[in-house]
Amino acid sequence: MNIKNPLHIIELREMLAHADYQSVKNYCQSYHPADIADALSSFPDSEARVVLGHAPAPLGAEIFSHLDEDVQVNMASGMPRKDLAALLADMPPDDRADLFKKMSSELQENVLPALAQAEREDIRRLASYEEGTTGAVMTSDYAVLSADLTASQAIDRLREAAPDKETIYYTYVVDEKRRLLGFVSLKDLITARRNARVGDIMHKDVIFSRVEDDQEASARKIQKYDLLALPVVNGGDALVGIFTHDDALDVITQETTEDMEKLAAITGTHEAGVYLKTPSWIHFKNRAYWIVGLAALGLISGVIIHSFQASLMHMLILALYMPMVADTGGNTGSQSATVVVRALALKEISPKDTFRVLYKELKISVLLALILGGLSWLKVMFLSHGDNIPMGISLAKVGVAIAAALALQVVTATLVGAILPLFAAKMKWDPAIVASPALTTVVDITGLLIYFTSAKLILGV
Amino acid sequence: MNIKNPLHIIELREMLAHADYQSVKNYCQSYHPADIADALSSFPDSEARVVLGHAPAPLGAEIFSHLDEDVQVNMASGMPRKDLAALLADMPPDDRADLFKKMSSELQENVLPALAQAEREDIRRLASYEEGTTGAVMTSDYAVLSADLTASQAIDRLREAAPDKETIYYTYVVDEKRRLLGFVSLKDLITARRNARVGDIMHKDVIFSRVEDDQEASARKIQKYDLLALPVVNGGDALVGIFTHDDALDVITQETTEDMEKLAAITGTHEAGVYLKTPSWIHFKNRAYWIVGLAALGLISGVIIHSFQASLMHMLILALYMPMVADTGGNTGSQSATVVVRALALKEISPKDTFRVLYKELKISVLLALILGGLSWLKVMFLSHGDNIPMGISLAKVGVAIAAALALQVVTATLVGAILPLFAAKMKWDPAIVASPALTTVVDITGLLIYFTSAKLILGV
Repeated sequence: MNIKNPLHIIELREMLAHADYQSVKNYCQSYHPADIADALSSFPDSEARVVLGHAPAPLGAEIFSHLDEDVQVNMASGMPRKDLAALLADMPPDDRADLFKKMSSELQENVLPALAQAEREDIRRLASYEEGTTGAVMTSDYAVLSADLTASQAIDRLREAAPDKETIYYTYVVDEKRRLLGFVSLKDLITARRNARVGDIMHKDVIFSRVEDDQEASARKIQKYDLLALPVVNGGDALVGIFTHDDALDVITQETTEDMEKLAAITGTHEAGVYLKTPSWIHFKNRAYWIVGLAALGLISGVIIHSFQASLMHMLILALYMPMVADTGGNTGSQSATVVVRALALKEISPKDTFRVLYKELKISVLLALILGGLSWLKVMFLSHGDNIPMGISLAKVGVAIAAALALQVVTATLVGAILPLFAAKMKWDPAIVASPALTTVVDITGLLIYFTSAKLILGV
Repeated sequence: MNIKNPLHIIELREMLAHADYQSVKNYCQSYHPADIADALSSFPDSEARVVLGHAPAPLGAEIFSHLDEDVQVNMASGMPRKDLAALLADMPPDDRADLFKKMSSELQENVLPALAQAEREDIRRLASYEEGTTGAVMTSDYAVLSADLTASQAIDRLREAAPDKETIYYTYVVDEKRRLLGFVSLKDLITARRNARVGDIMHKDVIFSRVEDDQEASARKIQKYDLLALPVVNGGDALVGIFTHDDALDVITQETTEDMEKLAAITGTHEAGVYLKTPSWIHFKNRAYWIVGLAALGLISGVIIHSFQASLMHMLILALYMPMVADTGGNTGSQSATVVVRALALKEISPKDTFRVLYKELKISVLLALILGGLSWLKVMFLSHGDNIPMGISLAKVGVAIAAALALQVVTATLVGAILPLFAAKMKWDPAIVASPALTTVVDITGLLIYFTSAKLILGV
């Protein structure tokens, strides 16, 4: 019952080759728009336009909205104005606004006059909100009712409106200023008595967001309360849109990807589907800022190593284990940073839990430190058996100095890995962006200081 | 209109102190179960049980299902059997099965006989599916219709059934063997003519999953097709449950957290809300496996460094820049690994795109290598000005050797970072688990080999 892409592509191509447009139309009506859009994405734009042109009007726009945004923009630029206007008229309002924002200004100016007044206004409104806010992801496609309607009048009203998809399953009750009085679900309306007053059956405690709220915060609201949709109000408390569950899912996916990339010091936003499309130059720019910054910060480690040159000259064996201490610090620090960043993002913890978190991380790191310290002592004894070391110092003692440094580094790195994101959260910065890259640098510095200090104290170098 | 937790807690405590149970009941009916559950989570179990006991029956169970699972288990163990059975009877089937699986066997055996036959069967069925499959996250709370009903008969049927939440918005049409014939939405039923036959208005192309399908794959289906719910069938193609959009959102959040943790070499599954609750011992275990494994693999780096001891003795300056080469390799490799792991998870790329990905990463890494190589040469000239180096070799030449090694390391590490996840995906392993930890070790080894080989070739040590 689920269709496979290759068949779609072959069949559609056949139909186009024979100019069999009736079959194309039937085809579009038989399968889910998302799958047809998948198939079309491997067609040249001109052929895709033909297919869309032969799908019955609202369906064509729906298939189009499932196409990748860059493909949409390309196709839009190549379309006659009349066709583009017809497409925009039928598209879901939020997808339409997103497309509009990506169109060149010429294309925008060109198509706006061809649209009806209501659509022009709608696009202007939705496209005016800043990226990342709830206003930028909401849709204007929802139904409102007045509190004085009866349940059966309300159902009739919804039956006529029958706007897109599931947005009639939740309807919002507003006053004459369009302020939210309550919400009522279609299930409520169906199960109520025919002449029950909407104002009496509605839920007054409506969970909502404001247009300027962060999109991820709104998506998490939808997640927490298991909502189908979240109403969005403006500064005057008037209802201006809804944020639907499917868009919430997409927002959470996008935000999570960005967090993961920040943990690896990659800046920039991540919109789905762009890895291969994004030019290498852009990938490079996103990574370069941090990498170069880190290299600059690495100067500090360099200076520290240089200041301990004498110790290294005296005991070359110390140089042999520097990388191990650095690596282990990086690994353990990354682990604690990742866990803390994630716990912060999921609101499992907040900066006020700092002491509890540090205490927990301390316990974990001490256990890890004992194991790793022991293993590293064995490593030194095994690898450096027979190495050249100054008289009067046994290899075992060198091993102890290195193991002690490593153990202390593990504890330090873990705590630093936990503290940095918490500090960032307290300063209202994004925890993920501070965690991994700054982390590697800081634990290198602490690691080197611990290492050479340990050598000085235990071995006297 | 959104309530604040502190007020809830204070008010509820007041009501309990005065044994004002009518107010407790009104309170529970005024706010969203998720918020009341939040407030209750800071109460001792005994007080929370009192509050739940005074909420009207189905509501108490709903609030209870929003509590953290571990809290649910604790409260369940302290409840009289009759109360627990009543609670379980009213809980959403999927939450009930999850709770049941976490209860001790004694508790399970104790409460089962107190449940009605239908509930016992339902729990047994849902709890039988393996963690991570679609069967384990689906619910049995949905409505079915036969194809011969008229639209108005169907609406009446749904009005009577009125099961939980939005699950009447999608209903499934099945035959006498409960096999999926189609699905019809409540909107379809409302907008159809009263005596239209369900079999005629239903959508025959139903997107579905099987009980054994991976939970994340099913969640991504819901995401791709913007579904409210996804029907789930068993081996005999009979409909046995549905997977709802809100649970899909939770699954995606959970799976993403696990991916992020794998990138930092943390094993184990991550269920929401557990960071602080998970004992340090468990956190330690999850991290220890990999960390110790990495330390063991680190032996290889150790052996390599030892084999180049002579070079280091000859030119101590080389020891001073080893950490820089290791760090930069780790950072650039992490960046490419993170991006590739994410692109694989979002299905933007697959192993068949390996060459395209490597080509892109090659271009990016060459740009980074040029910049970092140049910067590192400057660093050597600046930091090591006046350092002790053998006769006949200029500092500039040393800088070139180090910079060349770093540049080559950047390219190598980036490519390794991209290849490892792709290779893992091809072998049907989890890309995230191979990427970061194995990555650090591999790039250390390549980095050291490149570094000392460069020194040998360019400086003759």
